[in-house]
Amino acid sequence: MTSKSAGAPDPGSAATGNGPAVSRREFDLLFEAVRTWGRWDPADRGAWNRVTADHVRRATAAVRSGTVVPLALPWNTRPGPDNRKPAVHHMTDLGDVESPEPSTHKDFIAADYHGKGITHLDALCHIAYRGQLYGGRAAGDVVDTAGARFGAVSALGPLVTRGVLLDLPAVLGIGWLEPGQAVHAPDITAAEQALDVTIGEGDAVLLRSGQVRRRMALGAWDPDMASAGFHVDALPLLAERGIALLGGDGDSDVRPSPVEGVHSPVHALAVAAMGVPLLDNLDLEALSAATAEAGRYEFLLVVAPLNVPGGTGSPVTPVAVL
Amino acid sequence: MTSKSAGAPDPGSAATGNGPAVSRREFDLLFEAVRTWGRWDPADRGAWNRVTADHVRRATAAVRSGTVVPLALPWNTRPGPDNRKPAVHHMTDLGDVESPEPSTHKDFIAADYHGKGITHLDALCHIAYRGQLYGGRAAGDVVDTAGARFGAVSALGPLVTRGVLLDLPAVLGIGWLEPGQAVHAPDITAAEQALDVTIGEGDAVLLRSGQVRRRMALGAWDPDMASAGFHVDALPLLAERGIALLGGDGDSDVRPSPVEGVHSPVHALAVAAMGVPLLDNLDLEALSAATAEAGRYEFLLVVAPLNVPGGTGSPVTPVAVL
Amino acid sequence: MTSKSAGAPDPGSAATGNGPAVSRREFDLLFEAVRTWGRWDPADRGAWNRVTADHVRRATAAVRSGTVVPLALPWNTRPGPDNRKPAVHHMTDLGDVESPEPSTHKDFIAADYHGKGITHLDALCHIAYRGQLYGGRAAGDVVDTAGARFGAVSALGPLVTRGVLLDLPAVLGIGWLEPGQAVHAPDITAAEQALDVTIGEGDAVLLRSGQVRRRMALGAWDPDMASAGFHVDALPLLAERGIALLGGDGDSDVRPSPVEGVHSPVHALAVAAMGVPLLDNLDLEALSAATAEAGRYEFLLVVAPLNVPGGTGSPVTPVAVL
Amino acid sequence: MTSKSAGAPDPGSAATGNGPAVSRREFDLLFEAVRTWGRWDPADRGAWNRVTADHVRRATAAVRSGTVVPLALPWNTRPGPDNRKPAVHHMTDLGDVESPEPSTHKDFIAADYHGKGITHLDALCHIAYRGQLYGGRAAGDVVDTAGARFGAVSALGPLVTRGVLLDLPAVLGIGWLEPGQAVHAPDITAAEQALDVTIGEGDAVLLRSGQVRRRMALGAWDPDMASAGFHVDALPLLAERGIALLGGDGDSDVRPSPVEGVHSPVHALAVAAMGVPLLDNLDLEALSAATAEAGRYEFLLVVAPLNVPGGTGSPVTPVAVL
Repeated sequence: MTSKSAGAPDPGSAATGNGPAVSRREFDLLFEAVRTWGRWDPADRGAWNRVTADHVRRATAAVRSGTVVPLALPWNTRPGPDNRKPAVHHMTDLGDVESPEPSTHKDFIAADYHGKGITHLDALCHIAYRGQLYGGRAAGDVVDTAGARFGAVSALGPLVTRGVLLDLPAVLGIGWLEPGQAVHAPDITAAEQALDVTIGEGDAVLLRSGQVRRRMALGAWDPDMASAGFHVDALPLLAERGIALLGGDGDSDVRPSPVEGVHSPVHALAVAAMGVPLLDNLDLEALSAATAEAGRYEFLLVVAPLNVPGGTGSPVTPVAVL
Repeated sequence: MTSKSAGAPDPGSAATGNGPAVSRREFDLLFEAVRTWGRWDPADRGAWNRVTADHVRRATAAVRSGTVVPLALPWNTRPGPDNRKPAVHHMTDLGDVESPEPSTHKDFIAADYHGKGITHLDALCHIAYRGQLYGGRAAGDVVDTAGARFGAVSALGPLVTRGVLLDLPAVLGIGWLEPGQAVHAPDITAAEQALDVTIGEGDAVLLRSGQVRRRMALGAWDPDMASAGFHVDALPLLAERGIALLGGDGDSDVRPSPVEGVHSPVHALAVAAMGVPLLDNLDLEALSAATAEAGRYEFLLVVAPLNVPGGTGSPVTPVAVL
Repeated sequence: MTSKSAGAPDPGSAATGNGPAVSRREFDLLFEAVRTWGRWDPADRGAWNRVTADHVRRATAAVRSGTVVPLALPWNTRPGPDNRKPAVHHMTDLGDVESPEPSTHKDFIAADYHGKGITHLDALCHIAYRGQLYGGRAAGDVVDTAGARFGAVSALGPLVTRGVLLDLPAVLGIGWLEPGQAVHAPDITAAEQALDVTIGEGDAVLLRSGQVRRRMALGAWDPDMASAGFHVDALPLLAERGIALLGGDGDSDVRPSPVEGVHSPVHALAVAAMGVPLLDNLDLEALSAATAEAGRYEFLLVVAPLNVPGGTGSPVTPVAVL
Repeated sequence: MTSKSAGAPDPGSAATGNGPAVSRREFDLLFEAVRTWGRWDPADRGAWNRVTADHVRRATAAVRSGTVVPLALPWNTRPGPDNRKPAVHHMTDLGDVESPEPSTHKDFIAADYHGKGITHLDALCHIAYRGQLYGGRAAGDVVDTAGARFGAVSALGPLVTRGVLLDLPAVLGIGWLEPGQAVHAPDITAAEQALDVTIGEGDAVLLRSGQVRRRMALGAWDPDMASAGFHVDALPLLAERGIALLGGDGDSDVRPSPVEGVHSPVHALAVAAMGVPLLDNLDLEALSAATAEAGRYEFLLVVAPLNVPGGTGSPVTPVAVL
């Protein structure tokens, strides 16, 4: 997907697919260009350090209608092409274990949540490029079976900031981006113009490709084979804007990867170079409807990961408040 | 704990312990008195229906400093007297499973989270009194091995509202309430006065007993044997105020239970009678410090449970924004 | 599959599929006919009570070559049409958790093992017909979230007895029985004659349909849609012979079920009527080769389930010794 | 524990405790002395290669009474000083998930089974000494998050051999060895003489210290602090006899370790030097009674681990047949 003129995105741009191809050398230069290593303290929070108390105040002050929209898919216990490690949910008390009164119902949840089936946050330790985590530490030195000693989700804590929805199908007047379709910088600026919103310092940027809607209409497919998502050439713009968080209904990477020898190049750039955690597998359908109704594509966003010491991320229910 | 004069809580009141004793008959009358069955639609969300868009707007507008405080204990994988079903955390990829680049670190989490070790939300289906869930449905009809068809956490969704911290140790100028110490209605009104805050319709009320601090100082004990928490005689006041959510650093119930034949009477009243979900095992130490510093005991509270269809609750990281 | 003359099984019988159809009334009569309720003490061990010390002695004395053959499929962590609840396997220590020396490697296993993907034993509490477990207890009275108080795998313990392999593809000179193909009493007697073995009191009967080989050759399919296995009309013969255990490379039931309104009629007859535990999803390929080489279809069989109090069965590695 | 004269073990020897102390240098010489690297193919099965078909035949032929004795503790889901990673057991179907008939009861089991609470087998990949697994491979080269590519339990398969019970409390006429009491070579030979059994090539040696009985009588303690078990000076004798498997009601190591800087020296010698898998946390009480009654301390032993590819061991129910 590309668009020549910002105000008038080209609906036919889907034809361009996941390209252009990017060599490993070009990718490494890009990695250097967007890198923010050494900029913040604590480094574990990466770009979340951009979200100052002032940002938080402005984000909360921007609430208008008071509409609350959760952004998580249902906990998915059924295997499928997009759910290779199904989540687990067991009832462990049906009122017959602990003695009444009252009787209690309890359950157990479990998940190896990275993948395509569960809405989750990637902490900075999730991704290493050329063996290095964000900030330059060798992954082998700080991540082992006991967990991560740098970049863990417990070091991130929660995020409260302004969210911006890039609702590309809404901009383009289509149901969804086709799997494999890349989103480029001009698509972002076109969306900003069409949706009357400007991505700024400390913002959380959520890309809606419409793939949850597509899945509902056409059934599941393997997102590792084909997903709509950002082309790496969109990242310098996002880096320049100083975003704090990137997310979407996919996992932000267009697939197949256009980058030689790098299966998840947006992950590498966002997490390892820019210190920007990712939100994967959001359900943005209700938010799309709510923003359309409000005619406003910015909102308060709260992301509150589980407090897992050493964890690489967390299943989450991000919440948008319009 | 009781206090005759609201402005001057009696530090010696701890001596009164968990009483007075309550007969089953008295409890049943209390249950009737605070019951809100049939009041809302959807009934699954119970008292969260009190939190209208207007409440959300006011809660967000009340943010002052932009300070963000997470309220979750660390994911606790070590058994202890207060952690009988330890949480699980495994690293499932140390960069050696999925082929690079980038290399990825992944993990697995699991928990039978009800209990005393994990910060979690109780959904309405968690508790049945005399076989009935909130609203009157027979638990046996709507809860089975596949999950709950009424009152599930997936029906609750997230909560965004005003939070109020009842920081009793701060009010009393002590380190913590002793385990077994009951909190009564006059203690609540005294705290309101001392902390200059008034609990109102749709509020989330968080009780700090200081037991996280006590645990740090003195070591763990079995909270089922002795916990500070509300006496049932405090519930009519909370019902009258129209609270939406109740929580604390314990599980809200004073233990041992003062009610004949009812091991968790506050759970029964709040969840099953009033439709008020509970937040158990919060870490309120940082919030105590932040509210003291701000001199303000109200804040924006966001609770975003995992979206588990049929689930009885969820581990969560509630977030306070001051 | 049927065969007119015992000595010469009809290779064309596959064409008859899973029939003949059986009405619910006929099935209930069959259930009555093979029922052994009240015969043994302890009832939890059902037909394993047939295996006396004398049987054990004879079974061990029948060992000839000393060849040991394990019968378990690999622990399968990948979802598939025949593995809807994949097993879990995590490394929990790579020598970096516990301090050396020595360094230790540890792992975690988990499974909801009933299904088609994991080799397992069904204990008597696994199956209830018309609400009753083997022996007549109401399932609702003795099985709850805490486990089974009757018929648990912990009450079964291990089995050491003579095993008999009904290697039907070997008898028929074909690669495998087609999914959906039923095995009837005459097929059993024909196999006995062809393989020169006679099923007797206390024996474990293992049916090889060849479906593991078929899966390897043609890929996985959904065994709930079509599996080779016993037709219920074969059960009276097995009941008459006094078998202790029934198993196979499928789950013993031909599917689709030929019985009106009963999805797993062989399970109901074997487990609930006859007290015969089942071994599901065996890998019988190596045993088929070993028995063919030895020209002998009987062997010592040892089945040693995990000692799970209240458990409904267990993943196992049954062992044949020729 | 030591005994001057084999026939008359000294009941007072307990006073000698876990000593004598062994320097790291002495330990390394011991490691060299008992090492069998390079002796067998496949190396993964280590000393189980000693168990030839002939051994299997003789072991089965040695069955006399036909008494079957399982050796596994109950699956322990309660934390305790000897169960820091409790096993998990959930009922996942109470007849209400899958539609009847029949109705089915299902469950889920999980365990991080190494430790002191679960009866389990240690495969060769479980232990590395000075970074090397049995046979000399660097652990770092063959064990990663995906499992072990050498020495996995799936490479071991089952073991069928002669078992010998060293029932030391029976020999000594006491209830149990005290935690911390070491067993030395003369204790073994004394036990052989007293029990009229001789450990030979390919045998499985099971040490009963009586700690299961002690636990029942006196309650649980932390076995990492004090356990009865072998002193490393007993290993040369066991190596010389050519044992295939070592096990016991503890984990074979006397604790505290008498070896400088080596927390589990018997694990290092048995598994990493000798290629002898270990059976930990057996329940030998029933076997003790059965052997005493039979007046015979040898039996057929079958150990059938779950077939987990890459696994470091397995929970098991070893079975003795007398």
